[in-house]
Amino acid sequence: MEGKDRLIYIYGINPVQEAFKVKDALKEIYISKKRVSGLKNIMALADENSIPVKIVDDSFIDNIAKGVHQGVLAKVKPKKTINLQEALSIPDKRNEPAFFLILDLIEDPQNFGAILRTADAAGVHAVVYQKRRSAGVVPSVWKASSGAVWHVNLVEINNIKYAIRALKDNGIKIIGAEAKGKNLLWETDLTQPVALIIGSEGGGIRQSVLSFCEDVVSIPMKGMVNSLNVSVATALFVYEVIRQRSYFTKSSLKIL
Amino acid sequence: MEGKDRLIYIYGINPVQEAFKVKDALKEIYISKKRVSGLKNIMALADENSIPVKIVDDSFIDNIAKGVHQGVLAKVKPKKTINLQEALSIPDKRNEPAFFLILDLIEDPQNFGAILRTADAAGVHAVVYQKRRSAGVVPSVWKASSGAVWHVNLVEINNIKYAIRALKDNGIKIIGAEAKGKNLLWETDLTQPVALIIGSEGGGIRQSVLSFCEDVVSIPMKGMVNSLNVSVATALFVYEVIRQRSYFTKSSLKIL
Repeated sequence: MEGKDRLIYIYGINPVQEAFKVKDALKEIYISKKRVSGLKNIMALADENSIPVKIVDDSFIDNIAKGVHQGVLAKVKPKKTINLQEALSIPDKRNEPAFFLILDLIEDPQNFGAILRTADAAGVHAVVYQKRRSAGVVPSVWKASSGAVWHVNLVEINNIKYAIRALKDNGIKIIGAEAKGKNLLWETDLTQPVALIIGSEGGGIRQSVLSFCEDVVSIPMKGMVNSLNVSVATALFVYEVIRQRSYFTKSSLKIL
Repeated sequence: MEGKDRLIYIYGINPVQEAFKVKDALKEIYISKKRVSGLKNIMALADENSIPVKIVDDSFIDNIAKGVHQGVLAKVKPKKTINLQEALSIPDKRNEPAFFLILDLIEDPQNFGAILRTADAAGVHAVVYQKRRSAGVVPSVWKASSGAVWHVNLVEINNIKYAIRALKDNGIKIIGAEAKGKNLLWETDLTQPVALIIGSEGGGIRQSVLSFCEDVVSIPMKGMVNSLNVSVATALFVYEVIRQRSYFTKSSLKIL
């Protein structure tokens, strides 16, 4: 029982700062001797919230953090994921049409983190990803997400096809987001309950996953390289949902 | 004269591959002994284009490249920038309303590269940035741009305020892109000739630059962290220009 909740280390100003917003997340904070003056904000928050702070050598943090840590490290409870049933109850609770993101094997923690940051900003209901062959919630994801990983609902699942089927059974439209998609994202109705599937950096959406998609949408490309970073493309898809839902109700929708 | 054209090193598969599309860019390619089999495509292109290839130890590339090099390094002509007058002639040549991006002190080469990749994909006419206090066109920018830096028109300038004034004098609307912008990007007419100003990672657009903006537009935020990565935000602004211009002409525009 305790094993599941073993503590982990995260690093960087934003990931640690955001942890203060999560009940009982922070257990201990380590601050580099050399950076104390720049980290007064975190030290004050720690004081307010009675979180122990240790002032340490930079090398202590270097040895644990495997990235740019900005002089701060924290021992925290791991991110709590939710299950698919819990995720499916969110749209009703928020009184919004379902808005899910399904990641088909995003491998780079930088991209995974960047996508979670966007998912938080856009109010995505939950992000579903496969346990194997994907970037898990490792410390560099916390950093790349600017701490947003704390606030996004995550569903970690053994096989995303199972999740896709369950979402479909719940009346949610499955839409693939792909360079080779037939329809422009702007011409696709995203006001209805949707789950957007995002493919991997190298290979896009797997063929076996594509077959579940009721629609595959794309972003126009006018350049020489003709590809977008996956986290950038995801943001364009996600914010198109927000745009359409800001202006249209299902009945009044005219695609423009 | 020659000094200006001294050769530089870039690394990574995409940056080197894209260089083949640029006349006389490539001078020599270095391929890691261990990675030959995965780099056959580049070797074939080199052969076709009569570019010399040297097979070297991984350590040779490690020592020069300061990032993930995927076993390939190339000696190339530096990126040729254009001046403001040349940039101003592009909209007419393409028969499109002006579409410029002005970067107000983007410091992180990763962000600069990611923005250039998006600018290429979206067909931005030119990207204007300040020489000092910005990430220059360093090798990691090539990598982060997936090689798109080769294809984007770059205007490197001593003071972006000078460029902004010149663009304004040419009838181009200056629009700041900011979290605290008053108008939603979707509600702002971007079919007219525009230059979008993007602020720095930490501080946004400087006050002295903001005063030049005729409009300041923002992206809605619904999350806890409430900020987007600057390259993600840039993509949302840039693609809104594309979206509007795909559907509206200036006279028919109804903002929706």
